[in-house]
Amino acid sequence: MNGSLSGVLVPAVTPFDRRLAPDATRFAAYCRWLLDHGADGLAVFGTTGEATSLGLAERKDLLAKLVEAGIAPAKLLPGTGLSALPETVELTRHAVGLGCAGVLMLPPFYYKNVSDDGLIAAYSETIERVGDSRLRVYLYHIPQMSGVPLGLGVIERLLGKYPDTVVGIKDSSGNWEGTKAILKAFPQMTIFPATESRLLEGMALGAAGCISASANMNIVMIRALIDAIRRQDKSAAEMQHRVGAIRQAMEKVPVIPAIKGLFAGASGAADWAIVRPPLTMLAAPLLANLNRELTEAGFAEGAAFEGLPH
Amino acid sequence: MNGSLSGVLVPAVTPFDRRLAPDATRFAAYCRWLLDHGADGLAVFGTTGEATSLGLAERKDLLAKLVEAGIAPAKLLPGTGLSALPETVELTRHAVGLGCAGVLMLPPFYYKNVSDDGLIAAYSETIERVGDSRLRVYLYHIPQMSGVPLGLGVIERLLGKYPDTVVGIKDSSGNWEGTKAILKAFPQMTIFPATESRLLEGMALGAAGCISASANMNIVMIRALIDAIRRQDKSAAEMQHRVGAIRQAMEKVPVIPAIKGLFAGASGAADWAIVRPPLTMLAAPLLANLNRELTEAGFAEGAAFEGLPH
Repeated sequence: MNGSLSGVLVPAVTPFDRRLAPDATRFAAYCRWLLDHGADGLAVFGTTGEATSLGLAERKDLLAKLVEAGIAPAKLLPGTGLSALPETVELTRHAVGLGCAGVLMLPPFYYKNVSDDGLIAAYSETIERVGDSRLRVYLYHIPQMSGVPLGLGVIERLLGKYPDTVVGIKDSSGNWEGTKAILKAFPQMTIFPATESRLLEGMALGAAGCISASANMNIVMIRALIDAIRRQDKSAAEMQHRVGAIRQAMEKVPVIPAIKGLFAGASGAADWAIVRPPLTMLAAPLLANLNRELTEAGFAEGAAFEGLPH
Repeated sequence: MNGSLSGVLVPAVTPFDRRLAPDATRFAAYCRWLLDHGADGLAVFGTTGEATSLGLAERKDLLAKLVEAGIAPAKLLPGTGLSALPETVELTRHAVGLGCAGVLMLPPFYYKNVSDDGLIAAYSETIERVGDSRLRVYLYHIPQMSGVPLGLGVIERLLGKYPDTVVGIKDSSGNWEGTKAILKAFPQMTIFPATESRLLEGMALGAAGCISASANMNIVMIRALIDAIRRQDKSAAEMQHRVGAIRQAMEKVPVIPAIKGLFAGASGAADWAIVRPPLTMLAAPLLANLNRELTEAGFAEGAAFEGLPH
């Protein structure tokens, strides 16, 4: 595995204030809390971080403030793939300049049915314009949102062209057969499925860990599970089962508003629930139902959210 | 029809130089050429204009330069819908400040399966933050690219909330039954289907005209067709048939590279063919074939491209 990152990376949610502006202070405190509670790294500005709802200037500012606040750049894998080439280049260069371990890069996500050549040109232009040997790119495969799948052929050609730069992939497709095909085809890559539901199986097949939305609210248990898998502890199977049950409850609701709603409830800070349009807050009855289902699945909110910034 | 625009609006292609930078001079000359050859307005920064491949700063700059170059803002309907709320607000405010007739506004286009409430919140926040009584919003319904359809319920609620601001819609769905439903439901709106293939029928049903990609290369004939329809001239049916045949040939190829390839051939300026990734230039054999099919469909390149800027 070429990339320096492994284990559980959290695609941290981005807190907003009542005017819908990002709350940089709460964000830094939250990122610190995640690292203190078991996160191996932070995939900030992912889908879960409402990245595409943030402006370029907002992302640059928030990232710089995280580093200023003492979050180690070696732990950071910010999302930098925008739909416009010059902006992807600018944000990626900013992340590299701050010393981030790598960047998680969406393909340009407006035009659909684009050719492999077009996707490769988009990544190639970006890599060459950034022109920095420190750059480490993790491809971001999330066709259900981007509408732009990264097929095996595209991945293979990019790896061949930039073997020292294109080091990893986050596979958020939710298609486990596809994930297994990627794991089999590219053993040299650092591969993160987007779910903790198959960590045991995935890590045995060579996955680096996971970058999972629900790691925002279940980091403590996922950390313990990964440690058990690494120790080859027999408790891993039972822990995998419990982690999977919690994940399953989260998959029944819009996950970003759900995480933020849980945080608002646990911390007492109502602002935690705020999302930017086009997302909407989770309705109270849905949140109450989620809390019930999580408890039934063995989720211990007290232990999970201890010390969560408010 | 509430909006001030009608007839044929051209979603102008954006010229790039060999370094993939926008060519503001050629762009202004081209926009002038379109207006001189029959365009009623210019829907710059639409899908055909590779808008989402342009950065916010690039769009602002290009738009200001068009106005500086003497393109009347009353003819301009720039695309200003980005995926991040503050950027949509900034670009929209810029367009209103320049005096543009209106803005063509995509919904935030990354998150899929968002609720009607979320879409309405996104448009509402933008309209209220721009906070300018001169603002005229034309909604942009293009689900095959945005992945975010604007249903009748969303349109109705936005019209109810902002009757003086939300004045029109561009329906690029390619679903004629859907277009007819919009025409029937919202006679007070300025409605532009995205094709010239059904102008005769559409205008009889209340459509304001069209905003069509292929109007870039067939503006002269489309202008003549609209004039014939307005005069209720009997030649309109025959003209509609010919315009439709040309459109059909264009629909067989990726339309943006095809338009630019045709312009490169006709003007002798090879740079006209340049597109930004993730798009790719039209391969020479496809372009040759397109030229043959256009000729067979009765397209007279000499008359269509006379004086095209090189």
